Amino acid sequence: METLNATIAKIPAPDATARASAHARLARLTMPYWALGRLMDLAEDLAGMTGCPRPSVQRKTIVTMAGDHGVTAEGVSKYPPEVTPQMVHNFVRGGAGINALGRLAGARVVVVDMGVAGDLSALAKTGQIISKRIGPGTRNMAHGPAMTRDDAVRCVEAGIDVALQLGPATDVFGTGDMGIGNTTPSSAIVATITGAAVADVTGRGTGISDEQRKHKIEVIRKAIEVNRPDPKDALDVLAKVGGFEIGGIAGLILGAAAQRKPVLIDGFISTAGALIAHGLAPQAGAYMIAAHRSVEQGHRVALQFLEKQPLFDLDLRLGEGTGAALAMNLVEAAVRVLTEVATFDEAAVSEADK
Amino acid sequence: METLNATIAKIPAPDATARASAHARLARLTMPYWALGRLMDLAEDLAGMTGCPRPSVQRKTIVTMAGDHGVTAEGVSKYPPEVTPQMVHNFVRGGAGINALGRLAGARVVVVDMGVAGDLSALAKTGQIISKRIGPGTRNMAHGPAMTRDDAVRCVEAGIDVALQLGPATDVFGTGDMGIGNTTPSSAIVATITGAAVADVTGRGTGISDEQRKHKIEVIRKAIEVNRPDPKDALDVLAKVGGFEIGGIAGLILGAAAQRKPVLIDGFISTAGALIAHGLAPQAGAYMIAAHRSVEQGHRVALQFLEKQPLFDLDLRLGEGTGAALAMNLVEAAVRVLTEVATFDEAAVSEADK
Repeated sequence: METLNATIAKIPAPDATARASAHARLARLTMPYWALGRLMDLAEDLAGMTGCPRPSVQRKTIVTMAGDHGVTAEGVSKYPPEVTPQMVHNFVRGGAGINALGRLAGARVVVVDMGVAGDLSALAKTGQIISKRIGPGTRNMAHGPAMTRDDAVRCVEAGIDVALQLGPATDVFGTGDMGIGNTTPSSAIVATITGAAVADVTGRGTGISDEQRKHKIEVIRKAIEVNRPDPKDALDVLAKVGGFEIGGIAGLILGAAAQRKPVLIDGFISTAGALIAHGLAPQAGAYMIAAHRSVEQGHRVALQFLEKQPLFDLDLRLGEGTGAALAMNLVEAAVRVLTEVATFDEAAVSEADK
Repeated sequence: METLNATIAKIPAPDATARASAHARLARLTMPYWALGRLMDLAEDLAGMTGCPRPSVQRKTIVTMAGDHGVTAEGVSKYPPEVTPQMVHNFVRGGAGINALGRLAGARVVVVDMGVAGDLSALAKTGQIISKRIGPGTRNMAHGPAMTRDDAVRCVEAGIDVALQLGPATDVFGTGDMGIGNTTPSSAIVATITGAAVADVTGRGTGISDEQRKHKIEVIRKAIEVNRPDPKDALDVLAKVGGFEIGGIAGLILGAAAQRKPVLIDGFISTAGALIAHGLAPQAGAYMIAAHRSVEQGHRVALQFLEKQPLFDLDLRLGEGTGAALAMNLVEAAVRVLTEVATFDEAAVSEADK
């Protein structure tokens, strides 16, 4: 709990001076006022987060947190749980969606075993993944807490550790997840923290049928009823209806914020992690950039609760950090606009009639 | 008219075999079915356009067409017309928005003088821009046609020439525009071709007030009344209420399509050009990719008419090709997904329960 508390205490408010300086330059660029819209908002935000009027966003790291879920015993997913470790091997070999999009973004992809149902020690030993295993997957939240409160703290602190370890070589973080069944705890977290109805925040995950979705809603309702997570206590929510990788994502966000590093939040599972991070430290919200709006219907509700407008909506529902990887280009674009476009004075271009 | 007719005759239908082959591979990637949504749709479209199941999109060219507008005499813009040639100088020096975003995209930015109110012959002589000047800006469409029908053909054929000249070194084109006052003819084109009310497709351009916008609507209504452009005759529309750079954009699109090259349509002015291209050759629509939805309210109407869903909406309203430049990353992402992600068989990952 010490690491967690120390990290939260270190998260600064965005730098108002750097923000104002970025704003002043953006307002003088050779274009109609604020003609690049949300790209300019983002540039201003990045200046505030980093404390630099001309922030550097060259070094990008996507952290893909993997974990398994006891609740898959209830038949909430279309895929068998062995897919989680199989996909970790796919990540390591460079064959997954996040690898292709990470390469395009010029981002390093770091995979963390937060607790998958399979032995990945060989990959950890050779440094191909980071091991922060809490256990071989959570317990079935339909019958009791997914993990202990201590384990919830351990997850989050593991995420903080990863952020601190990678921080010195990272300008911008992106979050990612892999875990068969993990839309189920994510929906439970979103329903609990935002107060939305379970049916309104539960989607099709990997592609279940209407019938299976009805069942999934029942499982989530039952998990919330059995566990009664306290919406005001993010660790309680994480312990009772969360997941190891979701806690890891929450920690990564807190660790990034404590280092003044912007963090791109990927899709639905990452945003569930962001809700936990926000519950622990609302001031961390200033360092979160919502990459995209996913197909998962609960994502919209979670983003609204966090008061975040996503950068794009391309009907993605993969996770892994793929949306965050795509959004890295927009982060770079924002900084290019701020730093490379000439002002009216620099370019000797006439201004608007007053 | 010969070049135009020959180009239109050459535009092929998308290649169904390449499309089907791309689709089959995308459906087998190690992810839930179509989990990268519109990125996968785009990959499939690109295969169809190029006729390659694994299309190359490395070599990117943004063509920024510049032209001036006689209708600025009516006071429809906030900026003086001398800004058009000033901005061309800014493009050449690399200080504009399109330069910063073009560099990020790894795209070459080619500026074409379609007819600006200023002497750019020095830049054309040294090859820093391409000169296809029709004249020193259009005539004031509030009093008569913006240009002759012959000049309308010349604009479009100039755009085709540029596409053919750059084609051998280009995999993907992007359109762009620069021209003080050019949202006015664009709104007139959109209203004429789609049948929408002028007030519904007229926005604030560079940032005019409510009062100025009312006046702009009146000017556009008058131009349509005076000229009575025939919505079924795209050359008539271009001649009467268009602009040189808008015709150039239309030609660029037709020339790209005739070479099976995808073309990213930038914002409102580019989409007005796309409407002209579509009017001349509806089959060219298959080669258009709508980059973004701009702040200009008529853009939504124009995109709906073309049955195009934009890739993103970041409240941009700059033009120059900046939205097209940003979208280049998504085109590359789509191809990366298609070509770099492993299939279930390749990666030995278990598939969904049937």
